[in-house]
Amino acid sequence: MHGVRGSRPTLEAVAAHAGVSRATVSRVVNGGPGVRTEVREKVQRSVEELGYVPNSAARSLVTRRTGAVAVVIAEPETRVFSDPFFSQQLRGISRELSERDTQLLLMLLEHRRDYARIGRYLSGGHVDGALMFSLHSEDPLPAMAAESGLPTVFGGRPGWPGAEKDPDLLYVDTDNRGGARQAVAHLLERGRRRIAVITGPLDQTSALDRLQGHRDALAAAGAAGAGEAHGAFTAEGGERAMRELLGREPELDAVFAGSDLMASGALRALRAAGRRVPEDVAVVGYDDLEPAAWADPPLTTVRQDVEGMGRMMAELLLRRLDPSPAGPPPAPVVTPAQLVVRASST
Amino acid sequence: MHGVRGSRPTLEAVAAHAGVSRATVSRVVNGGPGVRTEVREKVQRSVEELGYVPNSAARSLVTRRTGAVAVVIAEPETRVFSDPFFSQQLRGISRELSERDTQLLLMLLEHRRDYARIGRYLSGGHVDGALMFSLHSEDPLPAMAAESGLPTVFGGRPGWPGAEKDPDLLYVDTDNRGGARQAVAHLLERGRRRIAVITGPLDQTSALDRLQGHRDALAAAGAAGAGEAHGAFTAEGGERAMRELLGREPELDAVFAGSDLMASGALRALRAAGRRVPEDVAVVGYDDLEPAAWADPPLTTVRQDVEGMGRMMAELLLRRLDPSPAGPPPAPVVTPAQLVVRASST
Repeated sequence: MHGVRGSRPTLEAVAAHAGVSRATVSRVVNGGPGVRTEVREKVQRSVEELGYVPNSAARSLVTRRTGAVAVVIAEPETRVFSDPFFSQQLRGISRELSERDTQLLLMLLEHRRDYARIGRYLSGGHVDGALMFSLHSEDPLPAMAAESGLPTVFGGRPGWPGAEKDPDLLYVDTDNRGGARQAVAHLLERGRRRIAVITGPLDQTSALDRLQGHRDALAAAGAAGAGEAHGAFTAEGGERAMRELLGREPELDAVFAGSDLMASGALRALRAAGRRVPEDVAVVGYDDLEPAAWADPPLTTVRQDVEGMGRMMAELLLRRLDPSPAGPPPAPVVTPAQLVVRASST
Repeated sequence: MHGVRGSRPTLEAVAAHAGVSRATVSRVVNGGPGVRTEVREKVQRSVEELGYVPNSAARSLVTRRTGAVAVVIAEPETRVFSDPFFSQQLRGISRELSERDTQLLLMLLEHRRDYARIGRYLSGGHVDGALMFSLHSEDPLPAMAAESGLPTVFGGRPGWPGAEKDPDLLYVDTDNRGGARQAVAHLLERGRRRIAVITGPLDQTSALDRLQGHRDALAAAGAAGAGEAHGAFTAEGGERAMRELLGREPELDAVFAGSDLMASGALRALRAAGRRVPEDVAVVGYDDLEPAAWADPPLTTVRQDVEGMGRMMAELLLRRLDPSPAGPPPAPVVTPAQLVVRASST
């Protein structure tokens, strides 16, 4: 009744419309390798204009695939929708999966007890693979993934015992320790000497690695830190942690926060305490997401390509699902981190 | 390895812990009716503390249920994550489903061509029902839902031909027309006479109904409008529409925008044009979500209980899935809308 039925355009019609070969259309539609981006986009435009429906229903009968991938974020729904890190990572995943005609299923959860239900769904044959991120060290998710037998890619370096020795483990991460080292080295170069740190939850490797990078940079310069406080990767947590640090060490002249959200909370606490940024206290964040550019003053931060990391997670999973005999086997990816200097530290 | 296995606490243990009967625990766990909120919450706390896993895997073998519900928002992922309306509606859905031990699967989409894939997944036996919202009049989703045979609840009054005559159609909406009427009547009461309107996409019933309410209020007062412009339910669209209205009708003294996001864009355009709010131009929005309270000046708006509407959608679907012989059959729900007066109009 709304045009989903009707005579369907053929693969040949798409090829003629796009001015490419049938084989090229097939490769694009089936997510095969070796098609240049311009050609891929041209074919996708033709697919869209003609309303071509690739026959992956038939394909899934042969492969016993569902054509769907589950995404599980180990955080309650409230954090998923309030932290731009998650929407950016999901954007990358969603775009990559859409280009490869694979359905993204975001499994929202509210409570710890919801994990058991998610485990049952993952084991029920409803998805071909899983992407999991924001894991904490006690998360039941890796065990569930293993139990379900599903190919899985993790976002962030897994931190459970033995993870580093598992040759099949796939993950995408950024160089958290190196990024934090750059951030704190920058503060030292600008003459700051009493540098505090606000960390994320230390049961997450990203938070631990950033704390370690902070300590590395201080040690390399022979500097003492001005305190460490926990900020839970939220703006409210960053604000609380900053107040705590000011109480313990009123003479601090800089703070490195392990995320932009925590840094924006720290800015609020500093303003409330009458400290000028950057004159009295320099502030550096991490992520380079929207809160960094919107902050007042704009935040010096460490950029990681969050959307690109999401794309890579999806891409690694699809390569594990359909190994190419020609290409290299899928392997963990660690992307570089890059300091972005703005007004909050200069 | 992470505590998902191990000896499982029994229903009896939960009953003893919560100090209620075994039957009450069973009703809470299986989402049955007739349990008071305090008792429900007490049982849920015991379930969580003891780590009780309800045996719905066994239940689903009997009922052939998957224990999962799909949520499809007929918008690209970028809008889903930037418009607080969607996160609020999802919050309500997620909370209600979690309390009833049902898994929420959010199906993200990027392009129109992704609908075909979603249709295949919905027809594949992977979910028990579907919740769909932000439908446009040409959406293929209702046809897909019908084809899949899945029980479905819509968010917003469906607008396709014949929808109003379908006795089985379930939806949750708010009184958009009445809400808009209140908004514009308020502007008239405050002495505004040249009132413009910024509408959402007119292929959505919510946008159409709000426009109609605006026209109703003007007609009742015998007032002429000061122009109508389209704002696409986004902040950028609202900004563009406001510029257009000012160009066409420089003497306008008020604007009613069909969403808070569009109203916040209108505020930006008014500021850029040197108009004071509310002295020169009064502004009223719709939704009463975060952008309304954060706006400068804070926005007069029409409140709808978006989270509550999400809860009701989930609740209606679960009632359709498990009809209670005692209760009334599930039926469409239209919630009231209420004017909230703030500084932007007074």
